[in-house]
Amino acid sequence: MTPARPKPAATRGHIVPIGGAEEKLRDPEILREFVQLSGADRARIAVIPTASQQDDTGEQYEKVFKDLGADRVRTFPFRDRADADREDLLEKLRDATGVFLTGGNQLRLSTTLGGTPAARLVRQLNANGVPVAGTSAGAAFLSEHMIAFGEEGPSPRADMVTLAPGLGLTNQVIIDQHFRQRGRLGRLLAALAYNPFAIGLGLDEDTAAFIGPDDSIEVRGSGAITIIDPSDVEYTSMDSSHRHDPVCILGVRLHVLINGASYNLLTRTPLAPAITT
Amino acid sequence: MTPARPKPAATRGHIVPIGGAEEKLRDPEILREFVQLSGADRARIAVIPTASQQDDTGEQYEKVFKDLGADRVRTFPFRDRADADREDLLEKLRDATGVFLTGGNQLRLSTTLGGTPAARLVRQLNANGVPVAGTSAGAAFLSEHMIAFGEEGPSPRADMVTLAPGLGLTNQVIIDQHFRQRGRLGRLLAALAYNPFAIGLGLDEDTAAFIGPDDSIEVRGSGAITIIDPSDVEYTSMDSSHRHDPVCILGVRLHVLINGASYNLLTRTPLAPAITT
Repeated sequence: MTPARPKPAATRGHIVPIGGAEEKLRDPEILREFVQLSGADRARIAVIPTASQQDDTGEQYEKVFKDLGADRVRTFPFRDRADADREDLLEKLRDATGVFLTGGNQLRLSTTLGGTPAARLVRQLNANGVPVAGTSAGAAFLSEHMIAFGEEGPSPRADMVTLAPGLGLTNQVIIDQHFRQRGRLGRLLAALAYNPFAIGLGLDEDTAAFIGPDDSIEVRGSGAITIIDPSDVEYTSMDSSHRHDPVCILGVRLHVLINGASYNLLTRTPLAPAITT
Repeated sequence: MTPARPKPAATRGHIVPIGGAEEKLRDPEILREFVQLSGADRARIAVIPTASQQDDTGEQYEKVFKDLGADRVRTFPFRDRADADREDLLEKLRDATGVFLTGGNQLRLSTTLGGTPAARLVRQLNANGVPVAGTSAGAAFLSEHMIAFGEEGPSPRADMVTLAPGLGLTNQVIIDQHFRQRGRLGRLLAALAYNPFAIGLGLDEDTAAFIGPDDSIEVRGSGAITIIDPSDVEYTSMDSSHRHDPVCILGVRLHVLINGASYNLLTRTPLAPAITT
């Protein structure tokens, strides 16, 4: 059987952060689209449950992805840094046409996988066209700058968020998840205020950003994605604020995107969903 | 003693929404500035505790305002609509140089005072130069369109917020309070999406917007005010969304203002706090 790489080798694969709690049973739209991108009935999906503390997280996703028609699904039990250097596992991972990172704790992902051959391999796979998805903690980990933890609430404060290096598939976005459910605008604004070069993606639960090789984002799912564009920020007080103080930020652009809407990261323009009346 | 009207009769008084839980003891900066605007040691402040279910709310503010140097402070016990038509109370209210609405439930304010002589008198006083402040529920009630209740979270949904007519001192802003503490961006965005003509003010606790007669806002207090400017909104799906669906909104402008920053409601431009290094 021929490899089912969905794209020619020079094109990066999709990057698919999901806001957590994605539908898995009734109509798993997001996970189905991920399987399609991974090669549909030729998909060989690698599930990395490192973020999770539960033993059956990998198995659960194996079942879902098989039910959605994937050819093969394998869980990669990277529990410590030594696992992430095991050649037997790496050889199998090399064969994947889609990589999925489960939820849990993003600091478990970064402390366990950061700098290991497994992390380098996932980056290579993505650069060569393999889509990489992550849900919840797995979503936060995908980008270069990861929100490690923080506080709730819509107003930013200087010490409200802690960033850490992530997997680094893109540095164009900073991702936050469970966005509506946990009131995380403030910490995302604070993260962007440190250095307003990136775009903030606030992902509601059961909502995914399919970031294509052309750096356009397609929204799928039942919630919304809040896009925070600090391109035109004319002032922030981040450099002069005391740690617990609120931070002044002037000139943020904000879009709320729903299923079918899109956003171009290069031109920084949103597009409404096609009208379906 | 001469009347202490702080402004000539043709100039509207300040409108001062406060996000709730304002400092009352240690350094009550917001309440002190309100007393100053009301005439300082010649201030005659009317406290309207109608929103509150507690019996001593009026007394508490009487003590605070007296400690801050007001000449006289009187509580107006408008408990039902008949009270709001009592000529003995109205006569005393007419004499006020500052009006303060306490927190509680803004629907108690609108159902008890809406359309009564007391509400009309407060509007007249403000039109003639008397500052009117409100905290929490009292803040929400100040504007023409009041958020009656709603749900938490940063992403807007079509049925997430219920508007009701407020006191109507201004129709330029829609006010939400306890903003950081209760995660209310979503409901404020939803309220604005119904008709993007107004500016949204999301007030953190212990933070006030001093809206001057020239329609410029000065920020005071320890938190932030999130300004939501929908002037450039190019699309919303509010008209086509089902009730529980998330709402798409493209092109919102957002500013986070802190103590010392200001915002001009006419030109819709923010101004950073003066640098004090």
